Amino acid sequence: MPELRYNVITRDWVIIATERAKRPDQFKRTVPRKAMPVHDPKCPFCPGNEKMTPSATYMVPMDGAWRVRVTPNKFAAVSREGERKRTVQGIKRTITGVGIHEVIVETPEHNRTTALLSDSDAETLIETYLNRFKAASDDPRVEQVTIFKNHGEAAGTSLEHPHSQLIATPVITTQLRDRLFSALDHFDEYGECIFCRVLDQELKEQIRIILETEHFVSYIPFADLTPFSLLIMPRRHMACFNEMNDAEAADLARILRRILLKLYRGLGDPDYNYVVRTAPTENMGVKYYHWYVSVIPRLTRMAGFEMGSGMFINVSLPEENASFLREMSVE
Amino acid sequence: MPELRYNVITRDWVIIATERAKRPDQFKRTVPRKAMPVHDPKCPFCPGNEKMTPSATYMVPMDGAWRVRVTPNKFAAVSREGERKRTVQGIKRTITGVGIHEVIVETPEHNRTTALLSDSDAETLIETYLNRFKAASDDPRVEQVTIFKNHGEAAGTSLEHPHSQLIATPVITTQLRDRLFSALDHFDEYGECIFCRVLDQELKEQIRIILETEHFVSYIPFADLTPFSLLIMPRRHMACFNEMNDAEAADLARILRRILLKLYRGLGDPDYNYVVRTAPTENMGVKYYHWYVSVIPRLTRMAGFEMGSGMFINVSLPEENASFLREMSVE
Repeated sequence: MPELRYNVITRDWVIIATERAKRPDQFKRTVPRKAMPVHDPKCPFCPGNEKMTPSATYMVPMDGAWRVRVTPNKFAAVSREGERKRTVQGIKRTITGVGIHEVIVETPEHNRTTALLSDSDAETLIETYLNRFKAASDDPRVEQVTIFKNHGEAAGTSLEHPHSQLIATPVITTQLRDRLFSALDHFDEYGECIFCRVLDQELKEQIRIILETEHFVSYIPFADLTPFSLLIMPRRHMACFNEMNDAEAADLARILRRILLKLYRGLGDPDYNYVVRTAPTENMGVKYYHWYVSVIPRLTRMAGFEMGSGMFINVSLPEENASFLREMSVE
Repeated sequence: MPELRYNVITRDWVIIATERAKRPDQFKRTVPRKAMPVHDPKCPFCPGNEKMTPSATYMVPMDGAWRVRVTPNKFAAVSREGERKRTVQGIKRTITGVGIHEVIVETPEHNRTTALLSDSDAETLIETYLNRFKAASDDPRVEQVTIFKNHGEAAGTSLEHPHSQLIATPVITTQLRDRLFSALDHFDEYGECIFCRVLDQELKEQIRIILETEHFVSYIPFADLTPFSLLIMPRRHMACFNEMNDAEAADLARILRRILLKLYRGLGDPDYNYVVRTAPTENMGVKYYHWYVSVIPRLTRMAGFEMGSGMFINVSLPEENASFLREMSVE
């Protein structure tokens, strides 16, 4: 019989299709990606084409060129200039679309997919995330900062050159506010961070753990909404992404790269998104919230039931998928 | 400058990309669908192949055959048999996956897409929805019933023969519970149904209205999350789908068919989902909730930002899209 599972952090129910679950290797990509050159003269993110994008807001230099380059998104979802203004008219509420939308070009090499970065390149990337997160959070118009990556068409990108994005918005979303509230509720009732509690439980059970490093743990949640969606969570309690210290940032680079490499090898370089889920900086230091990175391979399609009910059907077993990735070598 | 808009019903913020918005006709399908036969001997939903699916739970007969046929889903997400049992173990909560998962075959004709049903066929379909909604709601193990349709691959279906589905689950989702609560909140504060209020406002402004019939209004919400997502809302206040009377059911059939035909003609038969969003039957008659049908053309991909923040970026203008569909003839 299928089993319904509840995610105590996101408050989502999911149907785990225990009987007709696919085996982990059935999710492997069957059509190989086309080979890409190390440099594409038409790519706006390749070195030499810097004029195709706005001037850099941040850059990590390397040998007279750059290693990581951040620019305002040419097709920004929000406007860098302008004032935050609210209007309320009857049942209509608007805010001017001000904020920050940046592209983080992760490497000069067109074909160096994120999973194949060196540890040192990955460290530079995480340092860049931290720098841009802090800079965006300092903008007084900004309430929420989202750092994310779209890899592959199913994940919503058409540009192949490895890049991440940052969007800072002048409002907190209901999704984040609801999660902050429900974590606060748990703290008030039990006197503990619910994320720390879940992490403890996962470490005790071990069956959904993928990888542990000194400062981070990666696991597949008990109530995983879609196949192979996984978390990378800091062991130390921290509400906000920018509370990380240097050792933790370097360790995050290592575990992120290894997790992406496990997906790359185990599932044949799947399309995926990842996103840093964090409290806003105004909640830095709070005891009830805990930031983490969410990695979501895009292996299935959201259909009418999921959209209509908010409940997902997962046609795989979190425990089997975790075991599959745990055993996938990354050396 | 882009504009952020807030949906007072769903509490979602959306970024309306006013400056780089696409024109309505730029969303039109460019690759035509392949032609389909009126009967496919291999299709499990075609007449003559009834043995390929479980026995019908409901059928509308026609000329010694059937017009609409409902069967348990052969690959059900929930099990028809079994008891609803909860377990709570530490932070883990589960429920046995019992419930109802039915397939509603809408027509015997393999290539008769829903948009091209006759009014009378569409009426039969709505009557069938009502019958199955009531039957599923009567099951004491069931808390929430979702009726939905997936049309086309981007909407999550691989079976071409026109069909809808019903999934009844042993629990209410957080999405629905949150919407019930927030509508109740509004009722307590303002003494009105928030849906009725929004509908009034839309009827006054007219600019986002697509089509009005005697008992229903179809419009694109002010804060539309994705291009051309639209609602079909009953004028009369009703919390629950099965509070509809016969005249309203017949009118829903007419407006649904016309709306689908407008999409079919205007956007070249796009992939889409639709879903009946309703209070559960235990909330029948409440003053604060209002059922409706949500139609969601699948024209864009959800990417990392949407998943990570819960905020959408709509690269089209609700007002322009509504005007485009309003003017699309369906005679």
